Amino acid sequence: MIAANDPNIRSWVDIPENSDFPIQNLPFGVFKTAQLSPRVGVAIGDHIVDLKTLHVLGYMENLPFEQSDFHSASLNKIINRGKKATRELRNRLSKLLRSDVPDLKNKEHHVNQVLVKMSDAQMLLPVEIGDYTDFYSSIEHARNVGMMFRDPENALLPNWKHLPVGYHGRSSSIAVSGVDFHRPKGQTLPAGAAEPVFGPSRLLDFELEMAFITYPGKPLGQSISTEEAENYIFGMTLFNDWSARDIQKWEYVPLGPFLAKNFISTMSPWVVTLDALEPFKVQGPEQDPAVLPYLQYEGMKNYNIDLQVAIAPEGKQPTTICNSNFRYMYWNQSQQLAHHTINGCNIRGGDVMASGTISGKEPGSYGSMLELSWQGTKTIALADGDERKFLQDGDTVIVTGQASNGQTRIGFGEAKAKILPALS
Amino acid sequence: MIAANDPNIRSWVDIPENSDFPIQNLPFGVFKTAQLSPRVGVAIGDHIVDLKTLHVLGYMENLPFEQSDFHSASLNKIINRGKKATRELRNRLSKLLRSDVPDLKNKEHHVNQVLVKMSDAQMLLPVEIGDYTDFYSSIEHARNVGMMFRDPENALLPNWKHLPVGYHGRSSSIAVSGVDFHRPKGQTLPAGAAEPVFGPSRLLDFELEMAFITYPGKPLGQSISTEEAENYIFGMTLFNDWSARDIQKWEYVPLGPFLAKNFISTMSPWVVTLDALEPFKVQGPEQDPAVLPYLQYEGMKNYNIDLQVAIAPEGKQPTTICNSNFRYMYWNQSQQLAHHTINGCNIRGGDVMASGTISGKEPGSYGSMLELSWQGTKTIALADGDERKFLQDGDTVIVTGQASNGQTRIGFGEAKAKILPALS
Repeated sequence: MIAANDPNIRSWVDIPENSDFPIQNLPFGVFKTAQLSPRVGVAIGDHIVDLKTLHVLGYMENLPFEQSDFHSASLNKIINRGKKATRELRNRLSKLLRSDVPDLKNKEHHVNQVLVKMSDAQMLLPVEIGDYTDFYSSIEHARNVGMMFRDPENALLPNWKHLPVGYHGRSSSIAVSGVDFHRPKGQTLPAGAAEPVFGPSRLLDFELEMAFITYPGKPLGQSISTEEAENYIFGMTLFNDWSARDIQKWEYVPLGPFLAKNFISTMSPWVVTLDALEPFKVQGPEQDPAVLPYLQYEGMKNYNIDLQVAIAPEGKQPTTICNSNFRYMYWNQSQQLAHHTINGCNIRGGDVMASGTISGKEPGSYGSMLELSWQGTKTIALADGDERKFLQDGDTVIVTGQASNGQTRIGFGEAKAKILPALS
Repeated sequence: MIAANDPNIRSWVDIPENSDFPIQNLPFGVFKTAQLSPRVGVAIGDHIVDLKTLHVLGYMENLPFEQSDFHSASLNKIINRGKKATRELRNRLSKLLRSDVPDLKNKEHHVNQVLVKMSDAQMLLPVEIGDYTDFYSSIEHARNVGMMFRDPENALLPNWKHLPVGYHGRSSSIAVSGVDFHRPKGQTLPAGAAEPVFGPSRLLDFELEMAFITYPGKPLGQSISTEEAENYIFGMTLFNDWSARDIQKWEYVPLGPFLAKNFISTMSPWVVTLDALEPFKVQGPEQDPAVLPYLQYEGMKNYNIDLQVAIAPEGKQPTTICNSNFRYMYWNQSQQLAHHTINGCNIRGGDVMASGTISGKEPGSYGSMLELSWQGTKTIALADGDERKFLQDGDTVIVTGQASNGQTRIGFGEAKAKILPALS
């Protein structure tokens, strides 16, 4: 067991019940405050540990990091130190925050410098993203979309069970939770029309996803095997791959989604390390037909992570409209990374690879409005008599997630953003 | 007229006849030598002007640049200074290199420090690429591929004439000219087979493209109009979007090309500024049906740039197999950029947007082996009795380009790479 994952550890930092951030989590993020310039921190309860200050105060001795690694507006520098380094770092932080270790706990003047209230901090996008890839790895989602967009009789395309279908997305427009955005405009083809029209998207949607963030990979030309893949994955976040379904339908053949997706994607600010998720591994679904040897894997590569999506209309309380789980993924992250690099494609530290919409078997677990409203043929009830088929201006969409196994419960925080009216 | 474009200017630097780099060009690149660390340079004849040293020697006075902008492994810092700054820089360099301006010419000890022989230098990838987008803007290419991959009767999809179809590509695997690569491996579905097989691609291809490099754009949510677009384009390069056709055919429905493209793309090292290309503007093709207002434009936005592709088998001389021209593009760069940002997608300095394969009407102007060999049904003759349908191991593909108008001829150098055997 990774030392920091011990479920029996307690922290001297006060941690509210059901916090997403117990001492067993210790996710990494980047924050600033009115006083503090952007820097790396770790979440614990309602606080952030300021790692730059912790380094200055001498608590990082014998770890392979420099002060500038933490005094940075992204996690890339610590990620680029590699898995062994970040694992040692998390174990050190766990030790410093344990209630039975006095080193930091008993130095009140240090504690006051190092602990920042989350409510005083603004979280920033955690990584400078080189490339962003989006997969399409939930079989239920692929089947649902195939039924609606293509052919109900042949919903799953012939390649789907043979390879983790994926495509390149836009990294410039990935924003941290809390960045609101205007409804995108674009071309759509109204039903029955011969010519497209231009205007704000009428079918704005979320996509419930998770994303993983990579360590630096191998040189261009070399591949990462499924066995090696976890050594190249730093951690995971929640991810909302906002989609304009009407723009998508008109533009996506033959080269895939483009403007239907790249107006914004929302990422949660805290990167939960793959190490912290180790206790939540579960068996993935059986893959039938058998996959080619380079996609075969051993052991458990899926994760039991409960996921929720809630909608809060302007000025109203949120209603949870989707309960899904990351364990549903047909293709796991190790297979995704092995596939991505089998042709020699190189990855860099801080690349983001998202799962694709995570839908379960039951309608209540569908991870998009497209599926929940079955292309607008059904109504989704919200509190106070509100209802939706697609998203409206003023709606805030909140994605949350937690992993628990009876002993430990760790959370991902949230990926949240509000839809503002289209710019005129 | 931009001062540096004056066709009557001559340089005191010796410039071989038909050089790609007369004083009217002055393209920017990044180089290093055995003695010099990576830095920004400008090509003139067979030499590179070392801009870092030029700055140190005081020749950049009153220009909005710092020494570190030039002492850098990418052009991003100078690009991020904006169009006005880079235009002033090019005009200053033009002045310093003119035969009738003595400032630098007569200082032999400075000239010796500033002029580096191209043969002593190694060119590096000119930009750190945030995002890479590939368009599909040649109507002849789209029609040819549509006939082969889909339906000869409906080769052009319904959206094609209404919007510049594009998709996101992989930026990590874009390499500078001269970086050879191994034939990619991947999944393909043999004709008539029910299950895919794994192995080296058998249908390796080039795609003759050009790419433009952007200045920093507007904040997320705002759009760049066709009228504004040229203010956000720094310059252009040659681009080879290598493609594995058999991998592409199996993977690309429904989300577009992925592993068929992202194993490598080859970019020429010298970025020819849009300013230098100003004298080569030509009218684009008529667009019928009329495009939506946000895609309409005024003036000439196409460029008359001759393009060639040659293949050199291992140890043999190259044979030119394609003669095309950038003026054939149905969608121009200003339309591409306006479309890309119409939904609020943001661009950053150093983003790369490629044209898509540039095919003309005649078979000899087709910009890929797929089209030249008409999906392998025809043979392409090389010198010495060699022939090809697709590319073989040991083949070097060389893309070249030049713009000329009777008064001035400026070139792009080359985008070249060799195919090594697949790794076992």
